[in-house]
Amino acid sequence: MPDSLDALNARLLRFAQARDWEQFHSPKNLAMALAGEAGELLEHFQWLTEAQSAALDDAKRREVAHEMADILNYLVRLSERLGIDLLAAADEKIAINERRYPADKVRGDARRAAEYPDD
Amino acid sequence: MPDSLDALNARLLRFAQARDWEQFHSPKNLAMALAGEAGELLEHFQWLTEAQSAALDDAKRREVAHEMADILNYLVRLSERLGIDLLAAADEKIAINERRYPADKVRGDARRAAEYPDD
Amino acid sequence: MPDSLDALNARLLRFAQARDWEQFHSPKNLAMALAGEAGELLEHFQWLTEAQSAALDDAKRREVAHEMADILNYLVRLSERLGIDLLAAADEKIAINERRYPADKVRGDARRAAEYPDD
Amino acid sequence: MPDSLDALNARLLRFAQARDWEQFHSPKNLAMALAGEAGELLEHFQWLTEAQSAALDDAKRREVAHEMADILNYLVRLSERLGIDLLAAADEKIAINERRYPADKVRGDARRAAEYPDD
Repeated sequence: MPDSLDALNARLLRFAQARDWEQFHSPKNLAMALAGEAGELLEHFQWLTEAQSAALDDAKRREVAHEMADILNYLVRLSERLGIDLLAAADEKIAINERRYPADKVRGDARRAAEYPDD
Repeated sequence: MPDSLDALNARLLRFAQARDWEQFHSPKNLAMALAGEAGELLEHFQWLTEAQSAALDDAKRREVAHEMADILNYLVRLSERLGIDLLAAADEKIAINERRYPADKVRGDARRAAEYPDD
Repeated sequence: MPDSLDALNARLLRFAQARDWEQFHSPKNLAMALAGEAGELLEHFQWLTEAQSAALDDAKRREVAHEMADILNYLVRLSERLGIDLLAAADEKIAINERRYPADKVRGDARRAAEYPDD
Repeated sequence: MPDSLDALNARLLRFAQARDWEQFHSPKNLAMALAGEAGELLEHFQWLTEAQSAALDDAKRREVAHEMADILNYLVRLSERLGIDLLAAADEKIAINERRYPADKVRGDARRAAEYPDD
């Protein structure tokens, strides 16, 4: 089993190469595929209450896990094509969000970023 | 910098807790937030050709990296809420895809899974 | 004001032609743009409860209306490019759903289509 | 066949009422369902070139028409729940876009709105 994003990346690259599928994996196409999987993820939750969404039975939870795996796999493929380090990007984005949403200012308030007057 | 998905998960959990935002992080809501970010990713690529999407300038590439970070961060938050091991799920899904798309059968062919007659 | 989908279609076509934007409006690209707008729609609702989502204030309701307009506009552009009659397609799809979900079988039950045993 | 958005709206409302499904149709949930269908639309196009996306065979074109119908149907349901006039909203949004993208300034240029320096 891949024990890191790097190992997962290597495995996904071999999978694509063995099938000659790299030709389809432009960043544009991978972004579409990722968003398509995000749509499938939504479909599992759309008629559930928030409480129900936190109490999935095992079968449903496994289906959701597979949709999340699809999203991760396309995200990793996209990062490989664009030469982006996902963990470094996540780190950068969290640092931005820490400045944008100081804990003592936004505690308990989830309004959209765009709605904060000084954004 | 987080050097693994586990470290990233711990950091994101602290970020949410410090802001009392866990109350908003139902799986349903996190799935929506993830799909919203996938939509923003699409917007960067929608008017580009496939070739242009593979040759982003540095400024655009950084913006795309941040959208990808948002997606990863919500995916990790969702995995925490549902108790899903992302790398194990990715591993399982790749194994399924290896059976579903044998390399010698699908080489160079990217038709949708549903269109393979024996799926 | 356009008083029908046909009038809206004509107006959107003139808008695209006046800007020489038809060259960007491949079905693939329009599908991406539509999904990007669907992502923006989600962002308005992601941290709201269902009850809050039904009680938007006027400013938010207007923003949501504009996201919905963007979705409709790309949908109409896509229908123009593919030669699809949207109202006829909607009619066909409702007829399919009436057969798939007989009222006396599914009353009050919103499980996903795929979960009905005889689908 | 519904010959207008109003007629379609009335038919969809009856469909939901006959199944006691209005209880699931919060704006939040309908936005998710719409975005889920937008994701399915993407899946039809993600591995096609732009040229291929404009030359669908009849079977594929009918599948795409049904995804578009799903999107329209959820959009109409959402407009009913929020009391939004879709054609009026489309009209308003086009007027905004006419001011934002003057034809003589943006001809042949599809950069994202956000990238125009004076937006």
